[in-house]
Order: sequence, then structure tokens, then C-alpha cells
Amino acid sequence: MLADIRGPEDIRKLPVSALPDLAAEVRKTIIDGVANTGGHLASSLGATDLILALHYVFDTPKDRLVFDTGHQTYAHKILTGRAEQFKKIRTKGGISGFLKRYESEYDSFGAGHASTALSAAAGMAAARDRQADDRRIVAIVADGAMTGGMSWEAMQNIGLMRTNMLVVLNDNQMFISKRVGRLGNLLTKAMTLGRVQDAGRKVELFLNRFQFWGKNALKAAKRARALFLPGMIFEEMGFTYYGPVNGNNITDLVETLNYVKDLKGPVLLHVVTKKGYGYDPAEEKPTAYHGAGKFDAATGEFIKPGVPQPPSFTSVFGKTLVRLAEKDPRICAITAAMPEGTGTDKFRDRFPKRYYDVGIAEEHAVTFAAGLAADGEKPVCAIYSSFIQRSFDQVMHDIALQKLPVVIALDRSGIVGEDGPTHHGVFDMSLFRMLPDVACMAPADENELQHMLATALSLDKPVVLRYPRGKGFGVPLDPDLKILPFGKGRIISKGKDINFAAIGNRVHPAEKACEILKARGIDAGVADMRFIKPLDFELLQELSSMPIVTVEDNSLAGGFGSAVIEAFNSAGKKANVLRLGIPDAWVEHGKADELYEELGLTSETMADKAEEWLKSLKK
Amino acid sequence: MLADIRGPEDIRKLPVSALPDLAAEVRKTIIDGVANTGGHLASSLGATDLILALHYVFDTPKDRLVFDTGHQTYAHKILTGRAEQFKKIRTKGGISGFLKRYESEYDSFGAGHASTALSAAAGMAAARDRQADDRRIVAIVADGAMTGGMSWEAMQNIGLMRTNMLVVLNDNQMFISKRVGRLGNLLTKAMTLGRVQDAGRKVELFLNRFQFWGKNALKAAKRARALFLPGMIFEEMGFTYYGPVNGNNITDLVETLNYVKDLKGPVLLHVVTKKGYGYDPAEEKPTAYHGAGKFDAATGEFIKPGVPQPPSFTSVFGKTLVRLAEKDPRICAITAAMPEGTGTDKFRDRFPKRYYDVGIAEEHAVTFAAGLAADGEKPVCAIYSSFIQRSFDQVMHDIALQKLPVVIALDRSGIVGEDGPTHHGVFDMSLFRMLPDVACMAPADENELQHMLATALSLDKPVVLRYPRGKGFGVPLDPDLKILPFGKGRIISKGKDINFAAIGNRVHPAEKACEILKARGIDAGVADMRFIKPLDFELLQELSSMPIVTVEDNSLAGGFGSAVIEAFNSAGKKANVLRLGIPDAWVEHGKADELYEELGLTSETMADKAEEWLKSLKK
Repeated sequence: MLADIRGPEDIRKLPVSALPDLAAEVRKTIIDGVANTGGHLASSLGATDLILALHYVFDTPKDRLVFDTGHQTYAHKILTGRAEQFKKIRTKGGISGFLKRYESEYDSFGAGHASTALSAAAGMAAARDRQADDRRIVAIVADGAMTGGMSWEAMQNIGLMRTNMLVVLNDNQMFISKRVGRLGNLLTKAMTLGRVQDAGRKVELFLNRFQFWGKNALKAAKRARALFLPGMIFEEMGFTYYGPVNGNNITDLVETLNYVKDLKGPVLLHVVTKKGYGYDPAEEKPTAYHGAGKFDAATGEFIKPGVPQPPSFTSVFGKTLVRLAEKDPRICAITAAMPEGTGTDKFRDRFPKRYYDVGIAEEHAVTFAAGLAADGEKPVCAIYSSFIQRSFDQVMHDIALQKLPVVIALDRSGIVGEDGPTHHGVFDMSLFRMLPDVACMAPADENELQHMLATALSLDKPVVLRYPRGKGFGVPLDPDLKILPFGKGRIISKGKDINFAAIGNRVHPAEKACEILKARGIDAGVADMRFIKPLDFELLQELSSMPIVTVEDNSLAGGFGSAVIEAFNSAGKKANVLRLGIPDAWVEHGKADELYEELGLTSETMADKAEEWLKSLKK
Repeated sequence: MLADIRGPEDIRKLPVSALPDLAAEVRKTIIDGVANTGGHLASSLGATDLILALHYVFDTPKDRLVFDTGHQTYAHKILTGRAEQFKKIRTKGGISGFLKRYESEYDSFGAGHASTALSAAAGMAAARDRQADDRRIVAIVADGAMTGGMSWEAMQNIGLMRTNMLVVLNDNQMFISKRVGRLGNLLTKAMTLGRVQDAGRKVELFLNRFQFWGKNALKAAKRARALFLPGMIFEEMGFTYYGPVNGNNITDLVETLNYVKDLKGPVLLHVVTKKGYGYDPAEEKPTAYHGAGKFDAATGEFIKPGVPQPPSFTSVFGKTLVRLAEKDPRICAITAAMPEGTGTDKFRDRFPKRYYDVGIAEEHAVTFAAGLAADGEKPVCAIYSSFIQRSFDQVMHDIALQKLPVVIALDRSGIVGEDGPTHHGVFDMSLFRMLPDVACMAPADENELQHMLATALSLDKPVVLRYPRGKGFGVPLDPDLKILPFGKGRIISKGKDINFAAIGNRVHPAEKACEILKARGIDAGVADMRFIKPLDFELLQELSSMPIVTVEDNSLAGGFGSAVIEAFNSAGKKANVLRLGIPDAWVEHGKADELYEELGLTSETMADKAEEWLKSLKK
């Protein structure tokens, strides 16, 4: 059946009774595809029925579907002409794992970070109202994204605008990690009160039929309903609340969506879906299949690499944090709904009372950490690099300006690979080195990471510690933790012709680049700079009698190399510097190695660029 | 009486009956002080009784008072040993207009930006709980700051933590501008239901006395209360809600605070205060006296400058926006609770249906603008430079990555003067030039500003347009608006010895610096660079046979000068560049001119630095 679906208009020709089978086909396509490429499986399976029902009921793409975060939208991709391309999702040159306006007219607003859909949809509703058009605006937001502050800001404004808009709250009863927040409690209560709600809905339907009873009767009934029902938090915000509806029963969904689609004013439809629905392994372990690696579709077993892999930066970070916390009771850890992703789940299990999972709320996470530090604790706030962009102001205003000793640990810095431009962490060095009183560092490998975390916690000042996604370099882990000299890099080898000043995970590739250059008769050396700030200018000066190549996995604009040339400029000293890093363009998705290759940041490409530059200097 | 108050411990020795007179004295000190220095008058007068009552009831500084935003805390400063220093508030070397941990042990957490207090207080409560201490934590938050997303994130987490903490909601019935938000409506409802609430409170007090009735009776009573009362939004979040209380009746306040101060779990006390209370002119026009200039304390009349002043950048921006919108119906404007501050009040009055005041919600403002742009409108989002730091991620993720034509107009860029480090806008050039596909520009003066706004709206791409606080340079305003050449600067004069490459409001001072240098026998020229991005490298190359001095009112780390040396570096070209701008240190408060002097960014200091550098080059 799916083979005949060229787009939503073909779905709308089908009878409702055919939809469950179509949903099953879509699910199979998702499972088979993700088994081969990896991806966000559990949430996409859970949302399949909802997405199918939305395209069935709404006149897409004229009507706008605005999905929050976007990793749950594989069914949307498959149903909007991208079924064939889905096989290469998240691979270089293939379609994105998130939504993209440039990929399809059905992707009305791109996403990747959480909690943006309500704001974007509000803007689109305002545009629709200004243009006096009748297109419908639907925002689809999971319960996790509702905890983000932007959602609150948007809800208030939507309530105030009184614009026609449907918000589908996709309550999948667990977001990323199984944190039950305040909102979670409210929603649970909603479930148990479902019957009362149904009664309320019937009363309203009845009243609607007898318009002559006048507005007041309806108002009174609505008020009574608000008093009874858990949706009152939304009612108070100015929404008309409906639900909860079983979001994996497609027939019910179609009926309900048809009922609410042309109601006036902001409407919130509470839909309950099950993560991983329709695929037993994912239903049982939704967290494992949230961002899944490749697996065997028949058994659900993850495909293990043929050879043993070195530990990831994330896991070394998590273990070291526990180790340090054993000795210092002031150390506590904060995550924004990413215990497993940041490796702080180990800390949670060992020190549950010193652990704070604040939900998808990066702004709060940072200022909460500042509050802990202000009263004598040693908080480590672990957030992905691309998500800390949400908290630049809080790091500046609450931590740096007050010189509070908070360690901001940035996982997923640099190139993250398959998740693409919304998730690459290529701006953090530029962002944080501009803040006075903040130390910024990046370890060359997993062994240096453990020492750097110990160092960061010893400094009694704001520290940003950034490290990449994925496995380490397989270097041995020193048994004892060391405090590294503050603001000092380390010359690994000194070349007579040229030297790399490398930072973070580009240090080891730069070492290999030296070997390649040596084989070509060029005596190249490399320094592991360790600190973006304070920068080891003494070391740089020592190298500056020869040309220097800076290497980083951060934006060249304002990044590490920029700091290096600024330092020479400020000192009024001359140096020949070539800067390698991320150029002024978005880095698309693909395997990290492929992207590094394209960016000229692999050993081979670095060596080529360095050699070419050396030649140009001699001209 | 105030003369004998060395600190809160002296207040606590007084009978309650003496407090109203003390409050009156404090108010007089505030009025006399602000009349001489300018400052945040209306909110500080409104909060005086509340602050006095808090210090009377709580054991400060052991108990922590965490004030949101901090501009309402003049009474707190006066009562905590800073009465004498208050006369020099906001002047260079004097005390800050906001809270500062380094200024007093009573300032438990600094502020300046809104909506941070709940998060900080939550962190401090967590620290207290970990340390098993009995100190009390009180967050004082105005209704305006409650609309910010961070407050929602924090409320959820506080509800979840079930920690002992008092939140005083200072409902001053209007925040900055008279926007009535969704929360405003809820609070208004609270007022009218005051009597029901009182009844509810009495029931609970009664039940508390008869503990043997057991917990369930209390629970049932609480539940009944939640059903009746508007505070249920807070109750749903896990707070026990009390109020509303008249926040300008100090006797009532003391009684209520004594009642709630040792209750278990999170408590929200809703206090209603009147902005400007106790000073007729400010009560009548609270917006005019929000951030007030100098005035005559006896009459309330603002002191007008002796000579006519040029129009401010803000006002030229506002007028030009209206002018452009007259011709293009797609232009709409967005503010985050700052219609007057951003000069968009003119737009609001002329085009109320094209105007969106979203409250203190900068994240939402930006993504809402992106939604408008995605569906064909031309939004101009006007936000202060230091507040856009809240929205870096939204500019990156929702606007830049999608190449949406939103104009981000940044008022208060560079040095803002008396408001100090939380409010200086010295990072924006560094922040936004790192984003691909974003154009960044800064006008030399108010005339160039009007052309730049026209240019920005003609570009069909993301644009950041930044301009400073305060009056223009008094240049004539061209009658017709021009579209400036994209990415092109303009050589005003070309020097044979040295040239300034200046951006934004440092162009005119650089012109004067040229005259000073010419008088010293140095032939200096100046270029108005106009664009930070794309940078006019052609122009820079034309100047590069001579030494170039870059001048900016932005951080030198990653800023405009950094972009200039990056450009020469990337092109492999040599140039002698001296960068003048904001060094790696926080800029304190003071008059803008004093700060520019200290930073070496006045004409005289620029000329001196340039001359000295030229000499060093010749050695």
C-alpha cells in the first residue's frame, strides 16, 4: 500500500479502515531503515499513528504541521514522498534525521532543539491571521518539550492572541530519560480522570447543539469542567483542553482531530502515545532505542562492533566524576534530561541525593548550578554543546560575572556526525572564551579528560570543559588523577619546519599529520594546547619562529585559531599562522569521519593543507 | 530614625508600629537620591514596604533574600548599610543600581536580567538541604519576570524538589510597559476572589490547630481551596499559595510573613504592590519613572537638558520603522516588554495589529519572529543587546540555519553607562558574526541607522542591526531612505600615515581622533566599515599599505577587530593592525563617556594610542 502513496493527498483517498495497515507498513519501513542507519526509533514509532492521522485529517502542506524537536517525524518523512530516501536517512547526502524547510514543502519549520514549535507555530498563526487566510496551524509537542521555558512563554502568548491553533500534546509518558516532572504528574492525573473528562466533553457537545441557551450556559459548563479537570492548567492559559486520547488508536484519532480541527481559539489536544509502539524490543526498552545504533530488525539486537572499542569520552567523564565525588562531598551533578547521554547516570546511581535532573531546561540548569555554587557546593553541569547555546546569557550573567565555581561540562562538542547542523557543537569555544573570568579547556583524549575534570574542580572559578561525542582514542587511562598546570599547553614534539598548535580531539590527528609530513621530508611538530583560555602564549611564542598551524573542531570565526592570532596581534608580535577549523558554513549530517575529511580536519587533509601552505610561504 | 539603622539587626529591634515611619524615611532617601542620579524609581518605591518587612521578619543575611532583576531593591541597599553610599548610586566608583555579591553580604545573588531568581534560589535551597542547615530561602519575583521561561522551568523543579522555600510574587500590576499578559489576567482574577481566599485561609488555620483531625482533612480542605482559587496554577505546580496581600501595608505584611516563613515545602505568597507608591508623580506615571532621568524631587518634573539634544538612536529607529511599514504591509514588529525602551511604541500606536509585545520572553520573541518570516511576513524583532544573549540559540537554530528574513534590531549595544555590566551590550558582534548566513551591521550615526534599517529590510535574509543607547550625533537626517551597498564600508578620508577602520558609534570619535593626529603632524584617515559581516575586505586591503587601527565598542575577543585580522590571516595577507575595543574584563557602571575614556575609546585616547603604536612600529 505504501508504494502507492506519493504524498498525503493519496492517503486522504483511503478509507479510515485502511489506515491501521498503512501505519503498520510505515512502521516496518522505519524499523528496517533505522536498523541499517541508526536513528531515533522509539519516538518515531510511537508517533506514527498520530502523524498518519494528522496528514489524513489536515490539508497538508497548506495546513502547517509544526513538529517540536523533529526526531519523532520519520513517519512524516515516509508519507510525504521520502519513503525511498528514508533508507539513507542521516547518511551523507541522504535526507536529514530532523525536519528541514529546504528538504520538503511539508517540513514547514525545521527543528532539532526542543521547545521551539509553539513559538514558531504562534508566528505562523499570526502570519495567517495577517494574511486573512484559512490555513490551519498545528503544533505537535511532546511532554518533555513542554518543560522547556520557551513553551511557557509561547503558551502565554498564544492564550493572549486567541488565535485559531491546535496544539497536540504528544504525551509519551517518558521523555528521553524516565524523569517524571511536575508536568508528568499533572498528565498522569489527567489519565486517571479521563472519564470525568469524557462526561465534560459530552456536556459541551450537548450545549453546543443548543446555541439558544446562550453563551453563559456554555461558559458555566466550561467553568465547571475547568474545576474538575486536570487540563485546567492549559485552560487557565487560555486553551480549550481535550483529551486524553489514545494516540495509538488511529480511528479514534481521526475522529477526534476532525472534531477539533475547526474549533475557534487555541485548542490543546492531549494525546497519549507509547514510545516504541509496534516493535516489542523498543516498547520494552524505549531509552535504549531513543537514539539507537544499528540493530538486527528481526531480533532487535544491537550490532556490536567486530573489535572491542575504546571507552567513550562520555563514559570516562561519568566515571571520573563519580571518582572525584567519592572524595569531595560538595561535588554535585546537574543534567537537563540527559542522564545517559551525558554519562551522569553513573553519578545518579551512586549519589542520588547529589544529582539533579531538571528536565529539558538548560537555562534553569545553569542558574540552578550558580545558586548551588553561591552557597558552597561544587556543581558540575553537564550539557551538550549545541544545547548550552540556550544558556549563554545564564553562563555570562549568573556564573561568569559572579565568578562562581561551576564546571560546565560540554559533551558532543565539535562534529557530532549523523544528527547534523542543529546538533554540531561548533560554536562553544567562540562563545565562552569571550567571557571574562571563565577558563575554557578541551582534552586531547579520554586520558586527558579525566585529568582535566579533576583540574576544573580544583580551580574555584567558572570552567567550561568541552569534549567530543563518541569513542576515545584508545589511550591508556592513568590510574591517578593529576591537576594540570593552569593555562598551560604541552609540546608533544617540536618540528623544525612547521608546528601544529592543536586543541581537543584534533591533537591526535595532528600527531599523525606530523608523521605524514615527516615522510614527505617536512619536519613537523605538534603541541596539545589544552586551554583555549587562558591561552598559553608563552608556548605559542616558543613555536613562532616557525610557521604554526592551528587546528580545532570549532568555528574559525572567533574560535581557537582566532584567539591565537589575537594573542600575537595584541602582543604586537609577528607569526605565520594557518588556521584550520570549521569555515563560515553550516556543516551538514554524515559520519563524523566523512565530515572531518570534507572539512580538511583529518590527518591526511591537515598534512596536505600544511604542506601547500608552507610552499606558498616560501614563494 | 534611618540614621540609627546600621543594618537589619537594628530594624528587628523596633516595634512593628515604627515600621511605617521608617519606610517613609527610606522612600524619601530613594526619591532624593534618584532625583540626583537617575535610576529605577517606581519599582523601588513600590517594593519598599515589602523589603522592610522581609528584613524585619527574616534573619538576613543568614536567611537568603534572592531578588529577581534587582532594580527594585534600593530600599534593600539603604537598609543594609548602604544609605550613605546610596547618594552616589549608579555613578562611577559608587554602588551599583543592581545587586552584586561583591558589594554586600546581603546581596546573596546578583541580578540585572529578569527571571533568574527562582532558579538561583532553588540552587541555594538545594545547597542548604545538602548542608542540613536551617537557613531560609526567599525569592522575590515581580509578575513580569514570571512570564520568562526560566521561571516556568524553575517552578516545575521547585515543585518537584519539595524543598522549603518562600516565593514572594511581587505583583505590581504592570511590568515595565502596561502589557496585561495571561498571567496578569490570572492575577487580576486573584484580586477579585480575595475574599474567598481569606475564607480558605481561615479554614486552613483552623485545621492546622486541630492536627488530630489528621492529614486527610487538611488535604481535602486544600483541594477544595484549589478548586476555588486562582492560585491553583501555582498549587498545581506544587506550591502552597497564599494571598493576595496588600504589599504596601507593612503591618499586614509582617503578620503574613511570620505566618508563612516556617511552613514546609514551597510556598508562594502573592503580594500586591503599587509602583511608585508614596510619591504622587511616580504613582501617576509609573512608566515614566521606571528608569527615570534626573528630576526635581519637590515637583517630580524631569530636568531638561539646557540645550536641545539630537534625537536618540532609539527614536530614529522607531520613526524609520513606522515610515517603512507605511509602504510595506508585511513589516511587523516584536518587542519583549519594551515598547518605549525600543522606540517601537510609535509602531504600536500606528499599527496595533502588526505589533506583538510578547512579555519578558526573548527566546519566544525570536522564534515567533522566525515563524512570521517562514510564512511571508517581514518581522523586525527589537531587543536590547544584553537581553538577546538569552536568544543566541534561537537566532542560530530558528533564524540563521533556516535563512529566514528576520531583522534583529539590537538597541543598547556597546556601553550603556549607569546600568553597568549586566546591561552593557559588548558581546553581540562576536556572537552573531560566527553564524553563517547572517548579516551584521552597525551604523555610525542616527542618519546611517535609518538607511541601514531600510537596507536590512530589503535583504531577504537574517540581519542583526546593532546601535547604541542614547542620543545621536546630531547629524542631519536625509529626507529619503537609501539602500546601502551590501557588505560595503565607506572611506571617509584616507590618511597617508595611518587609518582607522571604525564601526558603529566609534566612527565619529575616530574622525575627531584623525583631526587630533593631524594637529600632531600625523596624516590619519578613517573608514566607516558599516558591516561586521560580510566584512568589506576589499576596502581593508586598500588601506593595508598603511597601519590600520580598528575601533569598536564590542569585546576584542572575537569582535570586529578580530574579524579584521582573521580576514587578513585567511587571505594570507600581511597588515599592521591595532585593535581598540573592550578588553577581557567586565566594564563597571558609570557615565558612558567616563567608561569610554577609561577604555581608551574616546577621540583623545584613541589618538594617543594610535600615535604611540605608530612610534613603536617605526622602532
